[in-house]
Amino acid sequence: MNALRSLGSEEQIAKWSPLCRNFQIITTYAQTELGHGTYLQGLETEATYDTATQDFVIHSPTMTATKWWPGDLGQSATHALVLAQLICSGVRRGMHAFIVPIRSLQDHTPLPGITIGNIGPKMALNNVDNGFLRLHHVRVPRENMLSRFAQVLPDGTYMRFGTAQSNYFAMVVTRVQLVAKEILPNLQKACVIAMRYSVIRRQSRLRPSDPEVKILDYQTQQQKLFPQLAMSYAFHFLAVSLSEFFELSYDSILNKDFSLLPELHALSTGAKAMTADFCTQGAEQCRRACGGHGYSELSGLPSLVTKVTASCTYEGENTVLYLQVARFLAKSYLQAQMSPGSTQQKSLPQSVAYLAKPDLSRCPAQMAADFLCPELYTTAWAHAAARLIKDAVHHVRTLEQSGVEQHEAWNQTTVIQLQAAKAHCYYITVKSFKEALEKLDNEPAIQQVLKRLCDLCALHGILTHSGDFLHDGFLSGAQVDMARTAYLDLLSLIRKDAILLTDAFDFTDQCLNSALGCYDGNVYERLFQWAQKAPVNTQENSAYEKYIRPLLQRSNL
Amino acid sequence: MNALRSLGSEEQIAKWSPLCRNFQIITTYAQTELGHGTYLQGLETEATYDTATQDFVIHSPTMTATKWWPGDLGQSATHALVLAQLICSGVRRGMHAFIVPIRSLQDHTPLPGITIGNIGPKMALNNVDNGFLRLHHVRVPRENMLSRFAQVLPDGTYMRFGTAQSNYFAMVVTRVQLVAKEILPNLQKACVIAMRYSVIRRQSRLRPSDPEVKILDYQTQQQKLFPQLAMSYAFHFLAVSLSEFFELSYDSILNKDFSLLPELHALSTGAKAMTADFCTQGAEQCRRACGGHGYSELSGLPSLVTKVTASCTYEGENTVLYLQVARFLAKSYLQAQMSPGSTQQKSLPQSVAYLAKPDLSRCPAQMAADFLCPELYTTAWAHAAARLIKDAVHHVRTLEQSGVEQHEAWNQTTVIQLQAAKAHCYYITVKSFKEALEKLDNEPAIQQVLKRLCDLCALHGILTHSGDFLHDGFLSGAQVDMARTAYLDLLSLIRKDAILLTDAFDFTDQCLNSALGCYDGNVYERLFQWAQKAPVNTQENSAYEKYIRPLLQRSNL
Repeated sequence: MNALRSLGSEEQIAKWSPLCRNFQIITTYAQTELGHGTYLQGLETEATYDTATQDFVIHSPTMTATKWWPGDLGQSATHALVLAQLICSGVRRGMHAFIVPIRSLQDHTPLPGITIGNIGPKMALNNVDNGFLRLHHVRVPRENMLSRFAQVLPDGTYMRFGTAQSNYFAMVVTRVQLVAKEILPNLQKACVIAMRYSVIRRQSRLRPSDPEVKILDYQTQQQKLFPQLAMSYAFHFLAVSLSEFFELSYDSILNKDFSLLPELHALSTGAKAMTADFCTQGAEQCRRACGGHGYSELSGLPSLVTKVTASCTYEGENTVLYLQVARFLAKSYLQAQMSPGSTQQKSLPQSVAYLAKPDLSRCPAQMAADFLCPELYTTAWAHAAARLIKDAVHHVRTLEQSGVEQHEAWNQTTVIQLQAAKAHCYYITVKSFKEALEKLDNEPAIQQVLKRLCDLCALHGILTHSGDFLHDGFLSGAQVDMARTAYLDLLSLIRKDAILLTDAFDFTDQCLNSALGCYDGNVYERLFQWAQKAPVNTQENSAYEKYIRPLLQRSNL
Repeated sequence: MNALRSLGSEEQIAKWSPLCRNFQIITTYAQTELGHGTYLQGLETEATYDTATQDFVIHSPTMTATKWWPGDLGQSATHALVLAQLICSGVRRGMHAFIVPIRSLQDHTPLPGITIGNIGPKMALNNVDNGFLRLHHVRVPRENMLSRFAQVLPDGTYMRFGTAQSNYFAMVVTRVQLVAKEILPNLQKACVIAMRYSVIRRQSRLRPSDPEVKILDYQTQQQKLFPQLAMSYAFHFLAVSLSEFFELSYDSILNKDFSLLPELHALSTGAKAMTADFCTQGAEQCRRACGGHGYSELSGLPSLVTKVTASCTYEGENTVLYLQVARFLAKSYLQAQMSPGSTQQKSLPQSVAYLAKPDLSRCPAQMAADFLCPELYTTAWAHAAARLIKDAVHHVRTLEQSGVEQHEAWNQTTVIQLQAAKAHCYYITVKSFKEALEKLDNEPAIQQVLKRLCDLCALHGILTHSGDFLHDGFLSGAQVDMARTAYLDLLSLIRKDAILLTDAFDFTDQCLNSALGCYDGNVYERLFQWAQKAPVNTQENSAYEKYIRPLLQRSNL
């Protein structure tokens, strides 16, 4: 439906939308192929216009052209919105979308020329019915090409409206929605479950004479869970600020002002990649923090992990996305380098304005408490990101100057580009958290609690990547130790509020679906009861008759 | 069987072993409980000796005392080796193991007092039949207590032979076996699959005029996969050297010389924790490097990931294990600090001998190529580990001197201890790889290829943890950049041999069970063919009749 709305003409939307909405048809968006994902230009499916009949012949010329992955395709969809290479009067015109009926509305059987099915079992998301689709010279009328941005006239004349950037925009919309709705809730749920379990589970003693300790009182457990809690909040505020920027730029983009699109693209792309990365790693961290019980499906944790890890790949593979951010950063850096008088000098997009600021050469912190200052650590992140971006750009330039071709120079520096893009995304995350705190001046109690999470988020990142801050002497070894002291002190401060901070996500027990994470804390009773209901316990077991009895009886003769 | 052999008397082994071997009985080792895993002393199951009848009453006094997780317990085992708190003449004597018949050998029904079943679905390993077991005053004869190290006489007198360390030894044996047989193969298989796929998959163009590029030619893909390849080899050599040390110390331990046990324990514990961590992370990295297809079960990758991640928890939770290594390191450090004349001065265990060496204050490298020197980077790792260990010990001491209790001081520095233990384990890994290389002087071609992997392993770690090397100025920022240059150059050198280096693991197609990883490279054909066989494609689908048809037909009236 997103694709129809962004690529269809007004008439097409008016015709097809109600059919979808009323379930008169079931649609799927068929883009990815067996042989191509991220690189859309490489898609092989063809749509050849036949002037004689005034329709398109949609065809999968090879095995690898088979559409692969579209959701609801395997057993449900009646219509596919097929992305295909348009061939018009013998000329290839690039990717366009075509509405193709694929199953009979009478009996749901595949229509002539259609081969269709499910792509088989996956790591999770087996409810999504991802399917495959091969098209053998399937004809659809000329009106079935979505024609907001391009059209084929009856005589085969090809006409293009709008810009390539508009297609871009549909992906941006999807990614902005993903962060808050699909990716982040998995980490938040994992946090709730692990945190609640960690105040019920007791294990080992700190002092031989004491009772066993709640595992959340161990520093190592706090070190596992609190950074995840901090990131859960950080990403919430990141998603809010992204969505505000989206709302702001959406109107101007609709009014054909594309000036904010590159920044919106970089922000949404970076936010998707970073949240997918961290939420996957964080959810797995929460799962492992629950020990053996975290490996049981009854904990609810395995399925959160296997679901969220898909987000590192879908809607743009993370590495590819980070590299798109890196290109935006490189451009912005070069723009910032231009002398103010230059005619090409434009004001920098707000999210990279730090590239134009004169840089502190050393961090002024003199004691651990100095690191609990949002201004200080946001500046530290800006410094590290700016240095890495500069480093990346200079590496490309040096290679080019030594005669390496532009594309190859880029490839040979992508590991460095990636590092720069990740530091920038971290900076953006810290900055949006800091700005969210500033808006809470009228809620000092909440502000104080959240500030600790903001501090933890920034400092955890600095300590994990301390090399990026020590590299040029911005931080000294002694300052890193101060930051660590501040960080460790934060862990015990956050301990007090940890449960309330997860309760605040307000997930119901039903939604968590976890024996470990229920609000009432009856972990063990519930694990025991739920295990009794497993089919392996309630259904007849043929393994004994088939394998075990013959074995034992033969042996015991 | 391992437990019977290490805890049973000669007579008990003679009696029970043949029964197990000939499948006259099926046994399980019941240790972990619903409420206790790692902390064995906290297990609640009780075995109370009854002098009148001369048997033990085995009992689960609480819900949390339920045995939980033992393999083959849920539906198969006829006998359990139950670890329980021995109570003898009213005195608690700690954990001992008891042979308890749990199912009828006639009809496999649970015996009186036994409640038994499967613990339900897990993230993977659903073939293992992990079970639960509650015992309600179940009586077993006095002879059923395994009595190699302790015995209860008919009159209830408790006798102890041997030391607590002997129990220790059984866990060491298991961990040594785990590394090579259970943990590492998952990473190796994931490497083979991802590497083979990466020379078949082509995606995008470096130059617009060129054909699409094999994804293994992208620097970022090499950065994802080659460190995993290097670790696969590094851990192979680590496992070999661990097992050599095990063989060496095994004999002396059998001869009641326990002097090598602490080092063997630290080495095996560290190796288990580190390989479990890295193999899990690496297998997931390989999976993601295959994009969407890596999310399909048909790739074989999801099950490798979900299987290997269990190893971070079983047979000792990783964090707990690292902290055991840290305790060994702290002791060794203090020992190294003693003045040579001191009476308590003993020679340091070989694996921590670096703690006694005078330390280089700065790395002598002056250019990138200097970093391709095993002596140099092994020393660098030793330096970083030694500094972190010293730092950790000093933190504990400072806290204690400021009045913090010993146990609390330890807890408040565990994050630092963990960091030190991990650096030490990395050092051990690099060192064993270096030593393996030295043995290949007669095979210069193989030596050269493997040396690149050794270099990569060491440098990848240094770059990932550059802060640990920059902190005290051991490396300068410029030297880190040299190391990075050396590292990036290695990626393109290893590219040539990458496929052969994975072929060398010699896994059969059948064993890989992957549509992406077959030797012949027919990735897409196989994915397509295997998908056709998915039950969802071959079995009748009731969803259409039940849900879709009513929906479509009602809507289309």
